[in-house]
Amino acid sequence: MINIAVLGYGTIGSGVVEVLGINGESIKKRAGDQINIKYILDLREFPGDPIMEKLVHSIDVILDDPEINIVVEVMGGVEPAYTFVKQALLRGKSVVTSNKELVAKHGAELLDLAKERNLNFLFEASVGGGIPIIRPLNQSLTADEIVEITGILNGTTNYILSKMSEDGLDFDTALANAQKMGYAERNPAADVEGHDACRKIAILSSLAFGMQVDFEDIYTEGITKITDTDIKYAKVLGARIKLFASSIRGNDSHVHAMVAPVLIKANHPLFSVNDVFNGIFVRGNVIGDVMFYGSGAGKLPTASAVVADVVDAAKHIGKNIWTIWSSKKLELTDINQVQHRFLIRVAGEIEKAKAEANKLFGEVEEVMVPEITGEYAFITGSITEQEMKEKKEFLDGVVSIIRVRF
Amino acid sequence: MINIAVLGYGTIGSGVVEVLGINGESIKKRAGDQINIKYILDLREFPGDPIMEKLVHSIDVILDDPEINIVVEVMGGVEPAYTFVKQALLRGKSVVTSNKELVAKHGAELLDLAKERNLNFLFEASVGGGIPIIRPLNQSLTADEIVEITGILNGTTNYILSKMSEDGLDFDTALANAQKMGYAERNPAADVEGHDACRKIAILSSLAFGMQVDFEDIYTEGITKITDTDIKYAKVLGARIKLFASSIRGNDSHVHAMVAPVLIKANHPLFSVNDVFNGIFVRGNVIGDVMFYGSGAGKLPTASAVVADVVDAAKHIGKNIWTIWSSKKLELTDINQVQHRFLIRVAGEIEKAKAEANKLFGEVEEVMVPEITGEYAFITGSITEQEMKEKKEFLDGVVSIIRVRF
Repeated sequence: MINIAVLGYGTIGSGVVEVLGINGESIKKRAGDQINIKYILDLREFPGDPIMEKLVHSIDVILDDPEINIVVEVMGGVEPAYTFVKQALLRGKSVVTSNKELVAKHGAELLDLAKERNLNFLFEASVGGGIPIIRPLNQSLTADEIVEITGILNGTTNYILSKMSEDGLDFDTALANAQKMGYAERNPAADVEGHDACRKIAILSSLAFGMQVDFEDIYTEGITKITDTDIKYAKVLGARIKLFASSIRGNDSHVHAMVAPVLIKANHPLFSVNDVFNGIFVRGNVIGDVMFYGSGAGKLPTASAVVADVVDAAKHIGKNIWTIWSSKKLELTDINQVQHRFLIRVAGEIEKAKAEANKLFGEVEEVMVPEITGEYAFITGSITEQEMKEKKEFLDGVVSIIRVRF
Repeated sequence: MINIAVLGYGTIGSGVVEVLGINGESIKKRAGDQINIKYILDLREFPGDPIMEKLVHSIDVILDDPEINIVVEVMGGVEPAYTFVKQALLRGKSVVTSNKELVAKHGAELLDLAKERNLNFLFEASVGGGIPIIRPLNQSLTADEIVEITGILNGTTNYILSKMSEDGLDFDTALANAQKMGYAERNPAADVEGHDACRKIAILSSLAFGMQVDFEDIYTEGITKITDTDIKYAKVLGARIKLFASSIRGNDSHVHAMVAPVLIKANHPLFSVNDVFNGIFVRGNVIGDVMFYGSGAGKLPTASAVVADVVDAAKHIGKNIWTIWSSKKLELTDINQVQHRFLIRVAGEIEKAKAEANKLFGEVEEVMVPEITGEYAFITGSITEQEMKEKKEFLDGVVSIIRVRF
């Protein structure tokens, strides 16, 4: 019997209990042993819930119990999760977590701690919910140099953008909708400002390139400025607007990373990733393009990934699963040097705007939406972010600027 | 240093040499040791090729060399691959293979042999080329009961169907096209008759359900009967025709499996898998829907998967990676009991055909393509294959019948 403790009895914690209940028999077969939840740590009480008999309020009960082999941290947030997880590793327990903040900030250190002690620190559920992506990156794409990793990593923003596109809603209505459906928090900033996606791409980039990518270094732009008018332009172009979290290694081996809304067309593998689904696109120098798709959040899908990690930890007691993520910092390319095409909308008299655009950007691709008047929209050639910034200063009445990935 | 031998210097064999050449440094880091190709087995000579110094013509040189830890079998076909692989395992060498015929037929036995000897038998490249699917099934989806696994597993037929759809080609022209592009063999039967996809879904089903699924038991229908007229009906429906290889566990826990062309709509995750790409859709009882996408064939993508398995074998010398695939046979549900909707085209006078269809199938959904006359087409409700067979006997002038997945 493998005894585990679950830290946090929220959505994911209760999902873990549920998954072990539903699929206990087949999980036992795969883990080679029965997985038993011995403790659940939570400050709250849950009167009437059968888990009450396992409930403890102090981490020490868990840390002090030599029977506990694996600790499952599903509390979220950096503290006290970090302290608890570090203590667990120091006390000889493997750790499984779904906590992206913790992994983005302390992943390298906690992996090292685990390795030194022949333990494991596993975090499949921290990115892409149920989608297998961490393990494939670590164990399947080992023959490749990763050239690009780009994900739709936040279900809330993808849902909002999908609804704006499908139902013609404006941002506020789509957000309110997402909140009503339980897909967005009351305070949606972490999602809509791109911070959630930023932490997730930091984790994926660290694994893909084997070095520490600090999330604070990643240029991050959310979707709050996207309007229903932008969506109309996307439609005319046969494109969609998606919040991309992206890391790309250039020819000079330098990596740039960013989170921002982009326009993509149907030939991009992430084009069909809609609603609350997530998708992760990986390009390797020999494998070419691969893509992983599934539920990026939700109680059971996320719990499925957590429990799969528990199974892996149970199969590897006393043996570290090697993960290459050095604490050495990867210096990202200055975002100002990165090239994109841009869709620019300018309010005002069309002929004047057109003349200005041509003067500043040379030959541009005009985009016209029949029902929209009083503005001029165009797509630039490939220019650096720096050039963009400089040139837009000379452009009167800029309404919106969106990066174009086609 | 880990010494390996490569059996077969064809497309994939030379790809393995190339991948180890291109990415040798990072592969060494991931494997924890240098991977060295000591021998290449092939009956042919390759004058002028630097691999000549490693070329051997007899398997015994490899089997007798205790320095060889891992044997890479990329010859294809059941024999002599089976004999060579079995001998290698009996002589204490782990085996990596890309050979779907070998794995579909002898997978369970070879896995057992490997397990008994603390060796590994790995075959990521046998299904879906470079797409990570075997390892995710074995190690990532371990918290789930798999309910369905459906793949577009053959790039050649997917290319043909895509070209028929995009360019309005008929089957023969699209096939000739595929042959000219090098995507189809001179003798295309294994691809277009569905045999290749059948072996691959047999492997995936065996892993998903943990028991032996014999490929001979899987109902298999190719794409040779699909015409450009069928494609026109698909378009009118907003659908595409895809060759699906599918295993589904019903509510009664019985599994049915089949390879056949089906009509799907844009809401299916495999809808956008076009050209030579492959996609594999998996539904689990807790994870929900996930999908894996990438190059299903090709020299470098396939070699990438082979080399990733070599890395895994190198990291697990002396330790078996547990794979659940019992040699106990899984009895599939009789295909006649399986329910589908069907698109049926009937030649002849429309009012007569319509009356007949209504008499036999009750309420049906009519499908009309403006430029097609002299035939009547309709989609049935959900009926068993048996009912379909019986009813079509009473229907005059049936032109085509295609299963519908929406």
